[in-house]
Amino acid sequence: MTLSYADLIPAARGMEPADVVFRNAEIFDAFSCTWEKSDLAIKSGIIIGIGRSYRGIRERDLRGAHLVPGLIDAHVHIESSLLVPPEYARLVASHGTTTVIADPHEIANVAGIRGIEYMLAGRTNAPVDILYMLPSCVPATPLDIGGASLDAEALAAFAGCEGIIGLGEMMNVPGVLAGTPAILRKLALSHIRDGHAPLLSGMDLNAYILAGLQSDHECTTRAEAEEKLRRGMYIFIREGSTEKNIAALIPMVTPENVSRCSFSTDDCHADLLAREGHIDRCIRTAVNCGLEPELAIRMATLSAAERFGLSDRGALAPGRRADLCIIDDPVSFTVKETLRCGKPAAAYPAPAATVSFPLTIRCTTPTRDQIRLDGNGPARVIGLVPGQIITDSLHFTLDAAALPDRERDLLKVVVCNRYGKRRIGAGIVHGFGFKGGAIAASISHDAHNIIATGAEDAEILAAIDAVIRAQGGMAAVNGPEVIVLPLDCAGLMSTLPAREVVARLDALREATGKMGGIAEPFMYLSFLALTVIPALRITDRGLFDGVAFRDVPVFGDEENSD
Amino acid sequence: MTLSYADLIPAARGMEPADVVFRNAEIFDAFSCTWEKSDLAIKSGIIIGIGRSYRGIRERDLRGAHLVPGLIDAHVHIESSLLVPPEYARLVASHGTTTVIADPHEIANVAGIRGIEYMLAGRTNAPVDILYMLPSCVPATPLDIGGASLDAEALAAFAGCEGIIGLGEMMNVPGVLAGTPAILRKLALSHIRDGHAPLLSGMDLNAYILAGLQSDHECTTRAEAEEKLRRGMYIFIREGSTEKNIAALIPMVTPENVSRCSFSTDDCHADLLAREGHIDRCIRTAVNCGLEPELAIRMATLSAAERFGLSDRGALAPGRRADLCIIDDPVSFTVKETLRCGKPAAAYPAPAATVSFPLTIRCTTPTRDQIRLDGNGPARVIGLVPGQIITDSLHFTLDAAALPDRERDLLKVVVCNRYGKRRIGAGIVHGFGFKGGAIAASISHDAHNIIATGAEDAEILAAIDAVIRAQGGMAAVNGPEVIVLPLDCAGLMSTLPAREVVARLDALREATGKMGGIAEPFMYLSFLALTVIPALRITDRGLFDGVAFRDVPVFGDEENSD
Repeated sequence: MTLSYADLIPAARGMEPADVVFRNAEIFDAFSCTWEKSDLAIKSGIIIGIGRSYRGIRERDLRGAHLVPGLIDAHVHIESSLLVPPEYARLVASHGTTTVIADPHEIANVAGIRGIEYMLAGRTNAPVDILYMLPSCVPATPLDIGGASLDAEALAAFAGCEGIIGLGEMMNVPGVLAGTPAILRKLALSHIRDGHAPLLSGMDLNAYILAGLQSDHECTTRAEAEEKLRRGMYIFIREGSTEKNIAALIPMVTPENVSRCSFSTDDCHADLLAREGHIDRCIRTAVNCGLEPELAIRMATLSAAERFGLSDRGALAPGRRADLCIIDDPVSFTVKETLRCGKPAAAYPAPAATVSFPLTIRCTTPTRDQIRLDGNGPARVIGLVPGQIITDSLHFTLDAAALPDRERDLLKVVVCNRYGKRRIGAGIVHGFGFKGGAIAASISHDAHNIIATGAEDAEILAAIDAVIRAQGGMAAVNGPEVIVLPLDCAGLMSTLPAREVVARLDALREATGKMGGIAEPFMYLSFLALTVIPALRITDRGLFDGVAFRDVPVFGDEENSD
Repeated sequence: MTLSYADLIPAARGMEPADVVFRNAEIFDAFSCTWEKSDLAIKSGIIIGIGRSYRGIRERDLRGAHLVPGLIDAHVHIESSLLVPPEYARLVASHGTTTVIADPHEIANVAGIRGIEYMLAGRTNAPVDILYMLPSCVPATPLDIGGASLDAEALAAFAGCEGIIGLGEMMNVPGVLAGTPAILRKLALSHIRDGHAPLLSGMDLNAYILAGLQSDHECTTRAEAEEKLRRGMYIFIREGSTEKNIAALIPMVTPENVSRCSFSTDDCHADLLAREGHIDRCIRTAVNCGLEPELAIRMATLSAAERFGLSDRGALAPGRRADLCIIDDPVSFTVKETLRCGKPAAAYPAPAATVSFPLTIRCTTPTRDQIRLDGNGPARVIGLVPGQIITDSLHFTLDAAALPDRERDLLKVVVCNRYGKRRIGAGIVHGFGFKGGAIAASISHDAHNIIATGAEDAEILAAIDAVIRAQGGMAAVNGPEVIVLPLDCAGLMSTLPAREVVARLDALREATGKMGGIAEPFMYLSFLALTVIPALRITDRGLFDGVAFRDVPVFGDEENSD
């Protein structure tokens, strides 16, 4: 709220015409979760009033269509869409979204400060207001370092920056509970702090909240979410590409607590966004799960705005931004039009030139020797767990020279450091099920080195080569066929238009389907290097025991490893 | 939320004992409006956790008693209690209150900056956290100037001051709607701004909200409150000594909108506070009017805290202040104990010396000549309206020399400027009904000059004299009997203990009862000088037409007045 609104007072009083008046709308009252049949007047991108007496330079009869506030995503990683911010914004705007609270955690792991600056630049003239939370855990652990490490002092440079509104998900729960000074300094950077505390409960949950963490988007059961809510946390109910929590959590939402509940998509690929939608999808899913549509809309609008102190949006009321969508009806919730500050996405021209990003793939394709595994006998093998990002620590007796072992589904998995450190780690994975071919990607949480797996070393190397040539990407190689989705922006996002990214994702899916393996192999692959998740992981140093939290050899005793 | 809480993390985790653990309590969950049977642990004045495993240096078994967060008054003028802030705090603390949002509007009209500083000093070591909103309308109008005039530049000196949290009720609705720069500069002082817009509706309401006013405590009908709520205002439902809106407004409160509704007492005398309570009384009244107790408690706690961005209180949750009360049960809502930051009121010792306030009664008792009215024929007479602060503009034919006219209930009313300007105005009032005696007071909104009325000039002068001798007060004179409640602090508040103030109020009531007039004559008297209210008023310049907004003579045409 600024004094510049003083110019709008005469129009709000009806003494000057509005820019536009929407007539005969069912207008959502986010404060009471009810509807009001009336007209809504906008001037200079601001809602100046609701009522029957406004005149507008332009007037539109909505004939009873429903007007709701623009939708808000309370927590998302834009990088996960594989789209750069302007393209992401265009896609989600078409689904009713006008504000996203984004954590640029992935690109910060690749490119540090420069990555955050790039994401901030992506706000310019976007049809969605992209607000950022500073990534609090870069790297996720000291062992997981990629292209950058950001301490409180580095993050402090962004404090007060336009577009930065708080501190992003604090995943370092042990660090918080231990009162680690470096963590506490990060918490002190902002009074808006998102938490991340899967399964945390009881006294440790109390301590985590006491330390200043205010929200959680990691609840998977109703009991977990209810405990966190009772202890004062805002609950972001997440429905992403793979993490789907609405069905389990929606029963906890009541009219009394709806002001504390919002939606988050966390990680959503472009194809899901394009085909099924964004926060509109969350609303439809929640309503399908039995929630009153009005409560679902409140979650997606006012509740999210209030959690972040954004009193300039979240409701259709005088003095707030004219962020709104026209929908057919509250139950089917099909978004017909989205306006941000009174203007449709088409009125936000794409920047003349996409902001370019420095090259982040600083490695060459390994030689066959560099990915060779030696040894035979009992071996540690990473075991995929269907539908989960945790892995099992398996043991097989084998001869490395005999890999791949298609019979027992044992494939080689390789991680190449992409930050110029010339480190390459190799291990064995069970569960992909490929009968031939290989896949590689420059997305591997959280360091985002290049990771690859496949039936034949030659194909693994070809897939890695394709990723490097594209300066980042997702690649599938099957004999002569090479399919690549280039992720030329930090090896995480594509500068292609959304529809092209979706087409390449489809082509990749078709290619990996022909290889005879599991569905969504890139998703499983992208988490195999994440050392904070049990049980066995692969890094650019080789195999890693995520329980004992140390490097381990593929063959032989731990003592023998260097 | 500050980093100092890091010290409490081990205790929150149960690794160190709490200072105190309340066992076996029904703990109110303000987020969901439900109850949880558990234990609550406190250390260093902060709630460190809820759960069954805490141990405390001290432990208390509450045997199923109910624990609710400390109560919050969203809008109050402490001066109206007639008590100085420390004594006011002691009184309301005994009724469960731990935070009040106060507007020092009255003392600011008397003493300007110095008055606000005095009220701020009253925060020190009080058993209630007194947070102030800067008075936005001193004086109420240029015609209503008393001891001070505060523009935006004067108020700006308090911006960021400990204990100042926003801009108080903006009563100058026409000034806002006209976009008056001096008003807009005041609105720009804070992003928390309380409104005051009785009966404002439609496009003008939209404009007032657009200009940045966020709350209203002046609603008297459900329709009015619902319109304001729909347009984005926080609704403070008021229940004061004379303005009682709960019965009319409580039906509008729903589980969906309870997060936007709070309680306000606005103006409450010490006797009502002592006998019937404070916000606890509002809760009981609301429940009697049919509101679910849990919604009433939410209004009085979390909803009020959130409206003012006070995330450190309003709920029983880790990291929040241990502001709480022990009550018997939610329906009868009898407060057994109140703790602010974990300590009872008794642990907040009264300051060794009350902060003294400079003398503000800078006038001498008028002579009989100075209050003489001359003239006869048709006269303008102020007509009291039972139960209202508006007055009628009446016309009687009379001879001033024949006053008082007990038959027709026509008494003299006198206003003496108390700020050294030596101005005395006299007029005629109908409706007090006194058969004898006189009353005078140094409370007369908003300039707070000395105002008096009565049957005989001699008694009027005696009452004024008693007020001046007490350096402010309320006085009743009936023949030889003189009863005075000294209001030695700015002529508005008494430095006596609450029980003594209540006793004097009782004595005054008994004395005015014997004079045979209407009930609560001081209340009516205190508003007779308020020029912003129609229709006829009395100031230190004489009679004032509150509709035409100009001074008028008692007798004769307006043209004849100077």
